[in-house]
Amino acid sequence: MKQVLILGAGRSSTSLINYLLEHAGEDQWKVTIGEQDTALAQKKFPEAEVIPFDIMNHDLAKSEIEKADLVISMVPASLHIYVAKICAAVGRDMLTASYVSDDIKALSGKFEAQGNQCIMELGLDPGIDHMSAMKVLDRIKAAGHELTAFETFTGGLLANDQKMDNPWKYKFTWNPRNVVMAGTGNVKFIQEDRFKYIPYHKLFSRTEVIHIPEHGYFEGYANRDSLKYLDLYNLRGIKTLYRGTLRRPGFCKAWNIFVQLGATDDSYQMENVSEMTHRQFINSFLLYNPNDSIELKLAHYMNLGMESEEMHKMKWLGMFSDELVGVDRGTPAQILEHILKKKWTLSPDDQDMIVMWHKFNYLDNGQPKEIQSHMVAVGDDSVNTAMSKTVGLPLAIAAKLVLQGKLKTKGVHIPTIKEIYEPILDELEKMGFEFCEREVI
Amino acid sequence: MKQVLILGAGRSSTSLINYLLEHAGEDQWKVTIGEQDTALAQKKFPEAEVIPFDIMNHDLAKSEIEKADLVISMVPASLHIYVAKICAAVGRDMLTASYVSDDIKALSGKFEAQGNQCIMELGLDPGIDHMSAMKVLDRIKAAGHELTAFETFTGGLLANDQKMDNPWKYKFTWNPRNVVMAGTGNVKFIQEDRFKYIPYHKLFSRTEVIHIPEHGYFEGYANRDSLKYLDLYNLRGIKTLYRGTLRRPGFCKAWNIFVQLGATDDSYQMENVSEMTHRQFINSFLLYNPNDSIELKLAHYMNLGMESEEMHKMKWLGMFSDELVGVDRGTPAQILEHILKKKWTLSPDDQDMIVMWHKFNYLDNGQPKEIQSHMVAVGDDSVNTAMSKTVGLPLAIAAKLVLQGKLKTKGVHIPTIKEIYEPILDELEKMGFEFCEREVI
Repeated sequence: MKQVLILGAGRSSTSLINYLLEHAGEDQWKVTIGEQDTALAQKKFPEAEVIPFDIMNHDLAKSEIEKADLVISMVPASLHIYVAKICAAVGRDMLTASYVSDDIKALSGKFEAQGNQCIMELGLDPGIDHMSAMKVLDRIKAAGHELTAFETFTGGLLANDQKMDNPWKYKFTWNPRNVVMAGTGNVKFIQEDRFKYIPYHKLFSRTEVIHIPEHGYFEGYANRDSLKYLDLYNLRGIKTLYRGTLRRPGFCKAWNIFVQLGATDDSYQMENVSEMTHRQFINSFLLYNPNDSIELKLAHYMNLGMESEEMHKMKWLGMFSDELVGVDRGTPAQILEHILKKKWTLSPDDQDMIVMWHKFNYLDNGQPKEIQSHMVAVGDDSVNTAMSKTVGLPLAIAAKLVLQGKLKTKGVHIPTIKEIYEPILDELEKMGFEFCEREVI
Repeated sequence: MKQVLILGAGRSSTSLINYLLEHAGEDQWKVTIGEQDTALAQKKFPEAEVIPFDIMNHDLAKSEIEKADLVISMVPASLHIYVAKICAAVGRDMLTASYVSDDIKALSGKFEAQGNQCIMELGLDPGIDHMSAMKVLDRIKAAGHELTAFETFTGGLLANDQKMDNPWKYKFTWNPRNVVMAGTGNVKFIQEDRFKYIPYHKLFSRTEVIHIPEHGYFEGYANRDSLKYLDLYNLRGIKTLYRGTLRRPGFCKAWNIFVQLGATDDSYQMENVSEMTHRQFINSFLLYNPNDSIELKLAHYMNLGMESEEMHKMKWLGMFSDELVGVDRGTPAQILEHILKKKWTLSPDDQDMIVMWHKFNYLDNGQPKEIQSHMVAVGDDSVNTAMSKTVGLPLAIAAKLVLQGKLKTKGVHIPTIKEIYEPILDELEKMGFEFCEREVI
């Protein structure tokens, strides 16, 4: 019987582990979970065998990995390299949902020489985005058409947002820190053959409106370095290439207040945090002027009306309240995250929603054509979220395919190749994660 | 006869070396210059002994340092540590004009045990700023007064700026890269007992106006982390503490265009730089819109009138010209620096100007008092600049005092202590670098 070892039983592993446990009998493999907190993991997954595992204990890690046929690494992203080194050395297949790093890519030859594969970026974003885009891109190319533009947006949102009094129509549905830090770093893309760059402080004021049939309007802001997809997706020569993140309309203009204030800065520790109120947090980024209220100073600094929608969103979050932040130290980003969690934490009956949208433009014998495709996934509740399913299930399907000997690539890969993406997308579709595609032009 | 070894004969060493050569006879010391480019150094300073020196060649460096009584390090700031390690090991005094780093501070015990001193921050800023501020601060404290606020601004400007058609009233008078990167990082200060933080993208729109009698108006923007001066100047408990940089009025609003565009970003390489024109450089940060000119897009993006003073400054710099940038690769900051040098390089008869201004507020038996002091130094021409003199002469004076045995501190120091700053300021004053002080309240 094949052995699959899953490293890490945290929130992001729930759908993955449940799928593999459900299919273990019929497909004849055994699921072992390696965890530091064995008691919690055993409680969560009573059917699974749970063993103590700590990737920083190299001898233990190696001996457990050697017992497995396939290792699925759900450890924090920076630790995958230690798992990969062992897998490459002892010759085991490995899967993750994280971005492939240069040091893992460098192990490709070793994996190949051992006859093994390490497939990374098998979650939602990165993951389903690669697979669903490449499927259409490969089809357009195979038909001999000339691709001119590719745009892609993904967002983690709320399905029940239109019924909420929450004016942001937003809560944290995944890692809050990533949301607070979103957009930091360089944004690069190509538009009509021109390289374009957006600095972080301009990002949330340069949004695009996107309409998805039956799901309404969204706004999108550019996401990091789109240029690296020129090679990843084999798109050299394309005129427009743009990756972005989706929010509900109005979110970005209000979020931009935090960016403009410097409240998302993660590079320095603030002073006197233990005595700081929400109101003082905001005031520490504003001009000193004892004659004006903090509300007035903020509205003036941001060029907003006092009764504007953005000021209402700030008030709703309690940003002007005299409540203590409630932490002893932190960077602006850490303190902001802590304040936001007070309002942006999912209630038990909240349903999250994943929205992914692609736009492909190409020339069919010189005639401009456009295809749009989208996938919308809705969570069951605050535990069985759409995010957990869309991250965990493609990984679980890939694991099944590897255990069944149906994925035969060797070395380090991401699912941009047909052999990998096609069977995973087929099975996702059967499970209801379907892309709706329509020809717009 | 005492031996003084000066490491580096570049632009910033000119005034320093000339002073030490002039005073070598009467004070009986010998000046040796250690340089990689010995021919150039010998041509510049025919009276000095020039020897080959490379700090990365440890054996050579050690044997030359051992021959000297005092070492003045003018090597690039990141290399001082290698000089300091040798000086501490073999027991030699050392002086520099650079910021003391943690690793050099850690050598203090070694210097002390050897009976030697290493005095850093002996230039203009850092240097004369410490000395001139501490002189007044110590006097206010000695009189038993309670200090409530300290503000200090320094700027490297042009003395002949009012006669120029250059609307910026500015050229590079020192390291151009430092000017392009100025303000990046965190800005922190205290105002009326409140900690305040300004992100980089807001820095150049939060300026203060400063008037200096007989020299007119300036604008100042905050400079890095003022909070570290709480301990450096022993100012814990002060209500307002603010350090800044001076420019001529109107500079910051126009410079802010580059900041807002992201044109001062130094963290990524731009694409297709070899074919890039000035105009395309600007356009790469603007929205794609083929119907509008780049001038119109920029004015709109920055919320400026097409005929505004800021747009005039951009045109004067040639930012909209179809001239090639003229480099093959670079970050936005590197490309911007290259473009700016075309217009902002000193002409032979340009005179630079250093302006330093301090404001001290204190309570004299409960009565609020205010002292303002300033120093203005003007360069002779584009070689014998005010910058070169104000950086080099305090260092040269300190060297003379060390060689004469008049500075007796041991270990690593900066000139915030009376024993160091008093004799240096006295001699600077005799040379015409005088602080004008006046009681404002």
